Amino acid sequence: MDFALPAELESLLARAQDFMREHVYPLEPVVARKGFDGAKAELDSAREACRRAGLWLPQMPEDYGGRGLPFLHHAHLSEVLGRSLLGHYVFNCQAPDAGNMELLHEQGSPEQKERFLRPLCEGRFRSCFSMTEPDRAGSNPTWLDTKAVLDGDEWVIDGRKWFTTAADGADFAIVMAVTDPDAAPHQRASMILVPTDTPGFVHTRRIAIMGEEGSGWMSHSEIEYRECRVPKENLLGGQGFGFMLAQHRLGPGRIHHCMRWLGLCERAFDLMCERAAKREIAPGKPLGTRQIVQEWIATSRAEIDAARLYVQKAAWTIDTKGLYAARTEISCIKFFVADILQKVVDRAIQTHGALGITEDTPLSAIFRHERGARIYDGPDEVHKHVVARRALKAHGLELGGNG
Amino acid sequence: MDFALPAELESLLARAQDFMREHVYPLEPVVARKGFDGAKAELDSAREACRRAGLWLPQMPEDYGGRGLPFLHHAHLSEVLGRSLLGHYVFNCQAPDAGNMELLHEQGSPEQKERFLRPLCEGRFRSCFSMTEPDRAGSNPTWLDTKAVLDGDEWVIDGRKWFTTAADGADFAIVMAVTDPDAAPHQRASMILVPTDTPGFVHTRRIAIMGEEGSGWMSHSEIEYRECRVPKENLLGGQGFGFMLAQHRLGPGRIHHCMRWLGLCERAFDLMCERAAKREIAPGKPLGTRQIVQEWIATSRAEIDAARLYVQKAAWTIDTKGLYAARTEISCIKFFVADILQKVVDRAIQTHGALGITEDTPLSAIFRHERGARIYDGPDEVHKHVVARRALKAHGLELGGNG
Amino acid sequence: MDFALPAELESLLARAQDFMREHVYPLEPVVARKGFDGAKAELDSAREACRRAGLWLPQMPEDYGGRGLPFLHHAHLSEVLGRSLLGHYVFNCQAPDAGNMELLHEQGSPEQKERFLRPLCEGRFRSCFSMTEPDRAGSNPTWLDTKAVLDGDEWVIDGRKWFTTAADGADFAIVMAVTDPDAAPHQRASMILVPTDTPGFVHTRRIAIMGEEGSGWMSHSEIEYRECRVPKENLLGGQGFGFMLAQHRLGPGRIHHCMRWLGLCERAFDLMCERAAKREIAPGKPLGTRQIVQEWIATSRAEIDAARLYVQKAAWTIDTKGLYAARTEISCIKFFVADILQKVVDRAIQTHGALGITEDTPLSAIFRHERGARIYDGPDEVHKHVVARRALKAHGLELGGNG
Amino acid sequence: MDFALPAELESLLARAQDFMREHVYPLEPVVARKGFDGAKAELDSAREACRRAGLWLPQMPEDYGGRGLPFLHHAHLSEVLGRSLLGHYVFNCQAPDAGNMELLHEQGSPEQKERFLRPLCEGRFRSCFSMTEPDRAGSNPTWLDTKAVLDGDEWVIDGRKWFTTAADGADFAIVMAVTDPDAAPHQRASMILVPTDTPGFVHTRRIAIMGEEGSGWMSHSEIEYRECRVPKENLLGGQGFGFMLAQHRLGPGRIHHCMRWLGLCERAFDLMCERAAKREIAPGKPLGTRQIVQEWIATSRAEIDAARLYVQKAAWTIDTKGLYAARTEISCIKFFVADILQKVVDRAIQTHGALGITEDTPLSAIFRHERGARIYDGPDEVHKHVVARRALKAHGLELGGNG
Repeated sequence: MDFALPAELESLLARAQDFMREHVYPLEPVVARKGFDGAKAELDSAREACRRAGLWLPQMPEDYGGRGLPFLHHAHLSEVLGRSLLGHYVFNCQAPDAGNMELLHEQGSPEQKERFLRPLCEGRFRSCFSMTEPDRAGSNPTWLDTKAVLDGDEWVIDGRKWFTTAADGADFAIVMAVTDPDAAPHQRASMILVPTDTPGFVHTRRIAIMGEEGSGWMSHSEIEYRECRVPKENLLGGQGFGFMLAQHRLGPGRIHHCMRWLGLCERAFDLMCERAAKREIAPGKPLGTRQIVQEWIATSRAEIDAARLYVQKAAWTIDTKGLYAARTEISCIKFFVADILQKVVDRAIQTHGALGITEDTPLSAIFRHERGARIYDGPDEVHKHVVARRALKAHGLELGGNG
Repeated sequence: MDFALPAELESLLARAQDFMREHVYPLEPVVARKGFDGAKAELDSAREACRRAGLWLPQMPEDYGGRGLPFLHHAHLSEVLGRSLLGHYVFNCQAPDAGNMELLHEQGSPEQKERFLRPLCEGRFRSCFSMTEPDRAGSNPTWLDTKAVLDGDEWVIDGRKWFTTAADGADFAIVMAVTDPDAAPHQRASMILVPTDTPGFVHTRRIAIMGEEGSGWMSHSEIEYRECRVPKENLLGGQGFGFMLAQHRLGPGRIHHCMRWLGLCERAFDLMCERAAKREIAPGKPLGTRQIVQEWIATSRAEIDAARLYVQKAAWTIDTKGLYAARTEISCIKFFVADILQKVVDRAIQTHGALGITEDTPLSAIFRHERGARIYDGPDEVHKHVVARRALKAHGLELGGNG
Repeated sequence: MDFALPAELESLLARAQDFMREHVYPLEPVVARKGFDGAKAELDSAREACRRAGLWLPQMPEDYGGRGLPFLHHAHLSEVLGRSLLGHYVFNCQAPDAGNMELLHEQGSPEQKERFLRPLCEGRFRSCFSMTEPDRAGSNPTWLDTKAVLDGDEWVIDGRKWFTTAADGADFAIVMAVTDPDAAPHQRASMILVPTDTPGFVHTRRIAIMGEEGSGWMSHSEIEYRECRVPKENLLGGQGFGFMLAQHRLGPGRIHHCMRWLGLCERAFDLMCERAAKREIAPGKPLGTRQIVQEWIATSRAEIDAARLYVQKAAWTIDTKGLYAARTEISCIKFFVADILQKVVDRAIQTHGALGITEDTPLSAIFRHERGARIYDGPDEVHKHVVARRALKAHGLELGGNG
Repeated sequence: MDFALPAELESLLARAQDFMREHVYPLEPVVARKGFDGAKAELDSAREACRRAGLWLPQMPEDYGGRGLPFLHHAHLSEVLGRSLLGHYVFNCQAPDAGNMELLHEQGSPEQKERFLRPLCEGRFRSCFSMTEPDRAGSNPTWLDTKAVLDGDEWVIDGRKWFTTAADGADFAIVMAVTDPDAAPHQRASMILVPTDTPGFVHTRRIAIMGEEGSGWMSHSEIEYRECRVPKENLLGGQGFGFMLAQHRLGPGRIHHCMRWLGLCERAFDLMCERAAKREIAPGKPLGTRQIVQEWIATSRAEIDAARLYVQKAAWTIDTKGLYAARTEISCIKFFVADILQKVVDRAIQTHGALGITEDTPLSAIFRHERGARIYDGPDEVHKHVVARRALKAHGLELGGNG
């Protein structure tokens, strides 16, 4: 058991931290003021700087222009990038594109790779992943209404999706649709690649989340598929493999979400300490002399550090023993870290008093954006059920999927 | 001990509920879409309906056009109005105007009443209360930088305020300024009436709170007073009485905030139950069959009902024994109810899943607007200190103001 | 709505408080040292003093030697008595005897009253209530194994019970047994009076609870009924009415438990404040200067006061509208107050440091005895289910008994 | 970063687990029935078996008869032994003897080692560590009343200590006494070795903890030192080094406490799962189908696993970077794991219902014994202060020792 990081990783993390400070943090107020679409030029220029710094596309192999970082190393990097909501985007390893790249890399045909994956890696394309439906509980991912029917050489897709992150301005979507309605629940759906300029791909609206509609990569859309036709060859992976691939996609994705949340936790922790050290509540008496603020700081420190080790352990298990062996750990970290994120940010806000609910610090934005952390990629309750089911199985009790 | 409500109060509450359903709830999406300023016409027309229904200005005496409701009855009404963020405004008993009316009614000279109070009561004026300062901890209200110096027949006011709620479009402000810098801390400040068209009253900006700048009554401003001159007669109450009057203003105000929060709790509770009863997580299996959702519902029910009795008791103590006797209860309900509000709304959001963080329900707006409930009118920590100080005094330990 | 207490109740409570200080608190170390059986003489003498003080048997009518206190008044008294684990016993209104008295008074035949009720009221008898079974979840009270079969003029009872409080040394038991196995679940069981000297009534063991076996009234036994025969006339209330009577018995009983717990909370609160005021953590710096201790004090104050009003409201509802109307409130207070009790006692212990886990204060005993508060008379989870079921029914969702 | 355990450690842990199951768990009911002193013979025989199995004294070097386990390996072992309150004792690595061995090994003179250390290692001696005083807050360890004055060739010790664990039947004590009252606070005290048969070493009483007085190693005593004289040579380490050595002793001790608590957590977790899988709440419906029980299981799983990694990390930091570098981590794990222990055991009890508060499972004993975990070796609040102080220092705020 060895908790030391390899020297080359330490050095990469340090370079990434420098880059964040120099190029990414200063972008935050710009994006806050202009929105994602409005700040396109500044974002592009930061991406260009990232390429020049040799930090671009850290997670992908070198023949796609990436750095080929091992999974566990990339997990560490994710925390550094996560300190800003813009970090992953600037480095081109942002959700949902990173997950789509991985899917295409592992499952795509040579033609699909050339047409969809390469431009993603180069940053010329953006993409989205179209799974959640308004009328079906996200907690039950095998229960979908969207259908794709083979009509000659084409898939004809019909259905409604929402919370399709980054669909606004995306070049293509990977859509989950039922292709085999009579198969077993986990084998009903397939993934299909749909260029967003296909007739029948209707971008209905950007859904305001916590009061903000956003734009471009920073938005979540409702999409309608109305007799939307794409060539048969746009099937990604095998027919009926949609659910399995989605699971496969989500596992490592959760590691990155968790590491990103820990980055946000550290950011909030720093702001809390800084405020406590500097803000006076009476002449010569800084807020940090108050024992309750000390309690928040200490508890946050412990929670963040324990959580980080847990996520790193889960990443190590995926790396050394595979996704299946890491199932319980992945579910655990998802709800464990999301809970800590919400608590740490809440404490940091309370430490800031009225300032904490303004836009003068990033805390308000984190508080709003990440209330969803306990919901997206499976609500807490679903992950807890999954963990308990396995624990109880070891004691001879078999529970069904919904408990 | 009798928990029954008088029949005429029951009937008033029922009429108010009907009015809310008919005239106020339908305004919510309008205001969400157009903002406060944009929806001025619709809001005015709802206010007119309220007047016609004989529900207007419930808290003020009849000679000001009000209904002269006893304090405890108005507290009950506050919960009904509180179910919508717009309720109090439509009935003309909204903060900060209602507190300002009370101050003017009790402390104002006949001229001040005629010039400021009457138009407020008639709904022709709006007002603001300018106390909190950016560089001084709100938790220490005797520590102010804003100064008013008597120069001949005029007060000359200099200083900076923020979180001055509803200043945008207000007709006048009541400003807290140090007039006696050498007096004891609690006797340094006075309240002064400042028409907002006075030269030197500078509306700097509306501060975005949780991402929203808002407008008109639904906004919070930063104000600069730059050699702002008003006649000597604009002093409200005695010189040096500012802090005492502010305390006096806040006590009953906290009752109304707490009852309003309980209204929001009930709204969130209803939405949570409705969602649990209707949303299916599998065919034929509504969310309400899940035990954790049941746990949230039951715990929320208990917390809300206990909290309501506590607030009513505090209101009764003010009514029958005076503000001083109610101090501990007022501090307790402030942090107790704010905490419950945050928990109940959080559970209701989680019950709604992704829908809960969109604007398709009022939950997201409540979640954002009311994160401040644990901060404004004294953060939790200050009220807890006040309560503990009194409890410890009974055991012989005297703590200073900052403990 | 009126929170004032009638003057005669205030005066009764003051007299009871004086009596507690003079006669009951001094008994605590005696009973701690000698156990209940060993301290019989001292307890008897305190009971005699209680009779002389005119405080004996407060809840029963005067023709049984009681004071005929209205239910709501007795609830207030329960809090005063509850400050010591011995209070109710000395006043002869302790569980399980008080509930048994009420059952006998309402359902007993004249002969049953003469034989069982009168000696209970006079303090010559003790009794127990034999319902919970080792092999059946207490959370599902209709599921019992113990059977009573009519054989000629006698009931023949067979079965095993545990957690039969105060069975050790009791003169009779009221046992719940299935008499109509084929009836609807809620109509299967009946209550039968069993003198403990009946052959076949086997006192197996006193069950150690949190490490203490106890004795006499302060113990919990396992009982076996082995072909235990009692006359047909020992049926209490109608055949098949057992479950209904048990429910009826438990409702008001929960009020008294909750008021008793609040008495314990106030005791712990006082000890916490006293310790905080007196214990120095550095020369001249008492513990109460620490903000976290202040936080515990303030939060406890708020929780206790809110909880008390809630319990009083539930008692008032029973009094004015009946048990059925009070169902939700009764379930809510059960879990709400038990949770607060555990938290307040835990904070008081932490304030005492190592002293808090010794027997040098009553906190350790309260901590241990009342861990069961969240379990006995229905675990939290069952009460929460009941509350949620009713809330969801109002929104059209009907859940079965186990949800 | 590598989370794999070396094969020889895995194999040692497996052997220890087998030994625990075969020799230690069966001792638990024996000790519960007879007490520590009463079960001396059975305990001795288990210790003998441990010696034969080559598992004896794992933490000490081979020339003292130990296995010379590296610190991090012993930390892992501690969790396995910790699953029973008797594990460490049987293996002869129990507190307070293990800490005393370490002190003697590092600081003892050759004579002290021969006279005190060797018999401890062989299991012929038991010892105690006499630091906490009744009149001085344990949270302020530099504030002691007990004094040792050099009178010729002898130390004369006067003072009162309590919570001296395992003093009953111990062969010697290491006592902390003020030897240099005028030195800086952290340099006032020294450690002195006192054989318990020295005149003036008065064993006053065993203090009942959570209702149990215990005996022998399983007890906590009050000790009076009345002109207690020991030779000058009994000073352990340098004069004035007492506090520094105590700190040094406590650091690794906290690792072992934390690992031991995690052992108890795992035991409680297993019992909770087993109960949930087997206990039926209705025919054919085990408790584990209830979602709240699933929630407890999942949350406990996550908390335990995160906590374990955190403790292992702290142990690794001590091992690779020294105690000083590990300070924050050591303080964090102390309060973080103690909190989780209390929560996990509470959930396991609630899952067991009434059975959980009886002695029919080890849960009740763990619940009682380990309420002290948040108090002994520094209460939560002290450790949180220490962590916050360091975090704030990094932002330029220097806080004193008591904040």
